[in-house]
Amino acid sequence: MSQSDKTFSAACPLPIGQYPHAVMAHGGGGRLMQQLLELLVRPALDNPWLEQRHDSAVLDCGGTRLAFTTDAYVVKPLQFPGGDIGKLAACGTLNDLAMSGAKPLFLSAALVIEEGFPFDTLRTVLDSLNAAVKAAGAAVVTGDTKVVENGKGDGLYITTSGIGLVEHGLSIGPAAIRPGDAVLVSGDIGRHGVAILSARESLGFATTVESDCADLSGLVGELIAAGIEIRCLRDLTRGGLASAVLELARDAKLDMELIEGAVPVCEEVRAACEILGYDPLYVANEGRMVLFVPQEQAEATLGLLRGHPLGRDAARIGSVIQAGAGRVSLRNAYGGQRILDLLSGEQLPRIC
Amino acid sequence: MSQSDKTFSAACPLPIGQYPHAVMAHGGGGRLMQQLLELLVRPALDNPWLEQRHDSAVLDCGGTRLAFTTDAYVVKPLQFPGGDIGKLAACGTLNDLAMSGAKPLFLSAALVIEEGFPFDTLRTVLDSLNAAVKAAGAAVVTGDTKVVENGKGDGLYITTSGIGLVEHGLSIGPAAIRPGDAVLVSGDIGRHGVAILSARESLGFATTVESDCADLSGLVGELIAAGIEIRCLRDLTRGGLASAVLELARDAKLDMELIEGAVPVCEEVRAACEILGYDPLYVANEGRMVLFVPQEQAEATLGLLRGHPLGRDAARIGSVIQAGAGRVSLRNAYGGQRILDLLSGEQLPRIC
Repeated sequence: MSQSDKTFSAACPLPIGQYPHAVMAHGGGGRLMQQLLELLVRPALDNPWLEQRHDSAVLDCGGTRLAFTTDAYVVKPLQFPGGDIGKLAACGTLNDLAMSGAKPLFLSAALVIEEGFPFDTLRTVLDSLNAAVKAAGAAVVTGDTKVVENGKGDGLYITTSGIGLVEHGLSIGPAAIRPGDAVLVSGDIGRHGVAILSARESLGFATTVESDCADLSGLVGELIAAGIEIRCLRDLTRGGLASAVLELARDAKLDMELIEGAVPVCEEVRAACEILGYDPLYVANEGRMVLFVPQEQAEATLGLLRGHPLGRDAARIGSVIQAGAGRVSLRNAYGGQRILDLLSGEQLPRIC
Repeated sequence: MSQSDKTFSAACPLPIGQYPHAVMAHGGGGRLMQQLLELLVRPALDNPWLEQRHDSAVLDCGGTRLAFTTDAYVVKPLQFPGGDIGKLAACGTLNDLAMSGAKPLFLSAALVIEEGFPFDTLRTVLDSLNAAVKAAGAAVVTGDTKVVENGKGDGLYITTSGIGLVEHGLSIGPAAIRPGDAVLVSGDIGRHGVAILSARESLGFATTVESDCADLSGLVGELIAAGIEIRCLRDLTRGGLASAVLELARDAKLDMELIEGAVPVCEEVRAACEILGYDPLYVANEGRMVLFVPQEQAEATLGLLRGHPLGRDAARIGSVIQAGAGRVSLRNAYGGQRILDLLSGEQLPRIC
């Protein structure tokens, strides 16, 4: 133990964002979470696969190329307009596989149940999870069930992991992005975050917006089958579109430009964000992705996206400019420009 | 939602063990946990892979035979004599892979961190996790980090999943057990449970026993390489040796007999159990397994086990008798016999 402590002192500059312990913002998808990952988690688990810096790791397993990913789901409340923690735990992990262009095969599900949690809700949530996994052509093949005391959980946490088959020959990931690439988004943004907000009754806020929570693996499969040479994909979750693009720009060491007016935001989400003082660019999604494709394939990709129910509102929202420090600028309708930055934490904790 | 509720009412006879909601015993590895899995979880996620009823699912992934498993770790306290939650989260999942005779390749780790959890402990625990995974020749290739509010967790929960390569041609699992097979255990039992107990200071109980927490994949690999035709393996965790054998007897529809005096229990564990009124047969382990091998290979298997540091105290503890309802009887030194049964819950919650 004393040796580990020494390693820690040497490798991990405490505090992380001035905190010697976890605060909610360390899980919020913003700068503090990045620092936690870069300064503590990655150094502890260091290996070449983590360096892929992608939603799922692509691995050689006995000659077969597989994608492997995991996510813990702690969304609050467990049921929200457009989904529940079961659907989310399925779609989130299916999407992480899809972001490598993998065909989802097998999922696992580990449950941490708080004492007192009603079994009828558990069954409803597991039915949602299973339905979404089955619809993707995959199956939940292994799992675990733990119970913790009342006050040591929050009803139910679900961790899913997924294995997908990588059948294409593309290298999809931040390292494949090139200057000149088109930046697309698969649909309008911010629905999931606003739906979660509206479900938290204590916030005294109501809307008819439903979460965009959906499995994107079918849509990605269609793009690959059509011969789109996808450079990179990233699903938009905690921290929203802005955080996803900023992370990719940093990891790819490329500057990018987004056109504010080109980013699709539906009227209800825009209104909700105005009331609450939120920027839709940073609001969470669970069924949207940003795509990087060669400039000359941008129109074809948009056509394919718009022909699919989950890509109906797809749009081209910007371009990759040049090698650089990973700066992302946002151009507005009047030609003005502002530099995007990661939020410190997130507007809203526990959205996924 | 209403349709799911209908499915639930039809398929899941509420209550489960007289409870309409989770109680600690539903996670304890005993009868109530079995009922939760059989009546609620399995029907919700029903598919042929779950029917393997094994620690890890063995899957065909693009022509490669892989084992896949997941476990959520909620052990309390996080650090205990002989290990911590990081080592446990590594070894537990490595062992589940090993129980299919798989060579561990890749692990994932998803963290649910409670607000206020100190980063130096987090780093210590991740170092333990990584060290154990590396020692097994595997790597943590993907992960996730979530933070929940103070009072909605208990410091740290870790869920690991693992992928292993199945290179042998054996069908290791309950369905392969045959009447006449020898039942072996790889070492003395009960150390993990007693170590956890002693670490819970509030129990006012002290011992020098360290957890047996260890990775068994190397040992299993040696048995397979030596040509042992392993019928079935099961690592002994929640519910101990008795629960593991009872589950296997039920799933294999075979009656078994264990010899009480042949089960290795060290003096300190025996003394602790006597003071506390526990039966060592039901106390948790994290580095022990029960093995089913053909009668004629029992001696060779014991020799191999005893030549390995993790199998030094291996013993033959019984036999598979005949096809039946899954009855497990325990023969004592005076020739008396008692029938073993699952405990309702477990003696001690959150030991893994």
